[in-house]
Amino acid sequence: MLFTAFFKEAEVDPKEIAKKTGKTAKLYFSTVKEEEKPYNLWRHFDKELAKDMSLYITGQMYAREKIPHQTRQLVTVAALTVLSKPDELKLHTHAALNVGCTKEEIAEVIFQTSIYGGVPAANTALTVLKEVLEERGEE
Amino acid sequence: MLFTAFFKEAEVDPKEIAKKTGKTAKLYFSTVKEEEKPYNLWRHFDKELAKDMSLYITGQMYAREKIPHQTRQLVTVAALTVLSKPDELKLHTHAALNVGCTKEEIAEVIFQTSIYGGVPAANTALTVLKEVLEERGEE
Amino acid sequence: MLFTAFFKEAEVDPKEIAKKTGKTAKLYFSTVKEEEKPYNLWRHFDKELAKDMSLYITGQMYAREKIPHQTRQLVTVAALTVLSKPDELKLHTHAALNVGCTKEEIAEVIFQTSIYGGVPAANTALTVLKEVLEERGEE
Amino acid sequence: MLFTAFFKEAEVDPKEIAKKTGKTAKLYFSTVKEEEKPYNLWRHFDKELAKDMSLYITGQMYAREKIPHQTRQLVTVAALTVLSKPDELKLHTHAALNVGCTKEEIAEVIFQTSIYGGVPAANTALTVLKEVLEERGEE
Amino acid sequence: MLFTAFFKEAEVDPKEIAKKTGKTAKLYFSTVKEEEKPYNLWRHFDKELAKDMSLYITGQMYAREKIPHQTRQLVTVAALTVLSKPDELKLHTHAALNVGCTKEEIAEVIFQTSIYGGVPAANTALTVLKEVLEERGEE
Amino acid sequence: MLFTAFFKEAEVDPKEIAKKTGKTAKLYFSTVKEEEKPYNLWRHFDKELAKDMSLYITGQMYAREKIPHQTRQLVTVAALTVLSKPDELKLHTHAALNVGCTKEEIAEVIFQTSIYGGVPAANTALTVLKEVLEERGEE
Repeated sequence: MLFTAFFKEAEVDPKEIAKKTGKTAKLYFSTVKEEEKPYNLWRHFDKELAKDMSLYITGQMYAREKIPHQTRQLVTVAALTVLSKPDELKLHTHAALNVGCTKEEIAEVIFQTSIYGGVPAANTALTVLKEVLEERGEE
Repeated sequence: MLFTAFFKEAEVDPKEIAKKTGKTAKLYFSTVKEEEKPYNLWRHFDKELAKDMSLYITGQMYAREKIPHQTRQLVTVAALTVLSKPDELKLHTHAALNVGCTKEEIAEVIFQTSIYGGVPAANTALTVLKEVLEERGEE
Repeated sequence: MLFTAFFKEAEVDPKEIAKKTGKTAKLYFSTVKEEEKPYNLWRHFDKELAKDMSLYITGQMYAREKIPHQTRQLVTVAALTVLSKPDELKLHTHAALNVGCTKEEIAEVIFQTSIYGGVPAANTALTVLKEVLEERGEE
Repeated sequence: MLFTAFFKEAEVDPKEIAKKTGKTAKLYFSTVKEEEKPYNLWRHFDKELAKDMSLYITGQMYAREKIPHQTRQLVTVAALTVLSKPDELKLHTHAALNVGCTKEEIAEVIFQTSIYGGVPAANTALTVLKEVLEERGEE
Repeated sequence: MLFTAFFKEAEVDPKEIAKKTGKTAKLYFSTVKEEEKPYNLWRHFDKELAKDMSLYITGQMYAREKIPHQTRQLVTVAALTVLSKPDELKLHTHAALNVGCTKEEIAEVIFQTSIYGGVPAANTALTVLKEVLEERGEE
Repeated sequence: MLFTAFFKEAEVDPKEIAKKTGKTAKLYFSTVKEEEKPYNLWRHFDKELAKDMSLYITGQMYAREKIPHQTRQLVTVAALTVLSKPDELKLHTHAALNVGCTKEEIAEVIFQTSIYGGVPAANTALTVLKEVLEERGEE
């Protein structure tokens, strides 16, 4: 099938996506400090692309209803743990707690990944989890 | 706290762990071909260590009841996707399907990780998922 | 700035993006076999998401005119080399050649990355380059 | 061979492993600050699993007598260097020095890995080595 | 072809390489602080090897005239972004700006790599770019 | 210290390095098939750079006498295992065996790295070791 043929029928409604983006961003990241949001970093360099990226990531990916938000955040924690991305993991530890995951579940996911991505990556992630819990007063 | 002091009280019951290991291995990997099981590879080089590793990984980690087996397998799929480990992912795609995850859920987890670990890693994982589904006749 | 406020003004024209996506995809990937295109793999699992991903990646990212297509492909070759993603690298080696990069330039980029991502990753990439050149009869 | 059949004969003696764990931990990590030991981080989240992990990693893996402790620590330095895990590398730089590796040998191992894991990863590791040596007054 | 036979004809002129090394190092890294140069870290551990590494990396790799210095630095930025090496990226962000790349081009390269190496790695790189620009007063 | 000043005194003797390169290459890789040697791949794209890379890697790095060849190969096995580079690992498994490491030692190094780089990476490496041993008839 040709790309050109296929995309003629593109019927994405940007207003609908913008609405979903705002709603999902609020659900996930309301407890994250403004200066820690990647969106502001993107905007610093390119406002239009920042919008495109947010609409795509938050509005078209996170807002999908194929798996519950809790599962989505736990698999995100797993991915960011083995990738050793503590800054991004901080955001999604907040998101996981904000959508109702318990700290025990988040810790368990991190421990589980130690088999695949190694123990040092899990240690870094547990340290992030500990800090986020302290920051939220949920220890 | 001193290690020596702490571990004096170690009360791991090896028989109990061996039982859990067997039960969990059966639940997860009954559809995996014998020659694709890492356990046999480990045994080839060191029988005693192979036993220790299985007891630890399957009996002491996978058998924990802190999160449902479905969640455990989905986070494992996420970790193996971003780590780009197609052989191991094959085993856990089987395990995920064997504990009741749907193919749509597994695909969704892989798509979600493309934001964190990149699109090429997700493509490799989707290819593995497609092959496992074909192998099982579940397409 | 609030997400909700910001995105109210979202003015993405999906028809325009669909057009750019088709044009850029043709420019880059016309020499790539249909079954090697990730787009078809995505469609296999989720047609709507496949469309969203193509519109975003090809239409909103690759089609940007901030750097020449040649530079865009060479930096992509560098990224895929150090990430050791030979399948995806194959696609972008085609794209690099299709937009006018020479094989000497592509090889030089790969050699350069050996300092950062190590020599084995560069070796894998040179092997891919060699295969693509043979496939195209450009050796 | 069936798992269940195989593990019936499991004859791990937990007391013996606990003893080995304590002895090996002391040999390796006596110079590491208490708050930098992963063991305490694991305990913070799950005391029982922390014990299981220590018994497995330190008692069943590190304590094996297949290669000398010096070789074991040098290969660990190599692995942690290319994985870019400076916190864990700090622990094992201590361990390497504690079991008798010289600083010249540790530096040489790090330099050697620059061919495989790239120069930036080696630079991070050399910085860790420099800091540990300063901390120990062994510069 | 035998190694021994081939290398009999080795006609590398070390004086010529030393000259190229100095010239290229000055072109790239004149704005980098002395204590941030890996060369000094290498020298701390092994003076002779530090020389060999500099002659090879800077004199024999960077000084090659197969691609323009701007392209060389942009592909380096791409590689260091997906490898998540912020310290080394800092050096090459300086180098990229010093050989005439604009901040818009550097940002674009980083955004482009987010498709391959993931968004978190790109975020780390954009933060480095922001800091280097502030340090240079070029924001 | 200025680069230009420092390198004026560069006293590398290219003939001496060429000799060391040939000798070390023979010691390590005499059992490796010609078409599997990276050197030939490099030569395919750039004969002069191939020579520079060989002189640097084999003549200036591997030939250093700071650690025994056996240790050098075991740390290389560790690095290539956690980096998941099976092709390169094959070369250095040959090299390790050629300089006198036993298969038990190589397996032990791979098992040890599973703690740091994860079990799937170790599994890939054990598979390579098994294949090399079969190829050499040393099982």
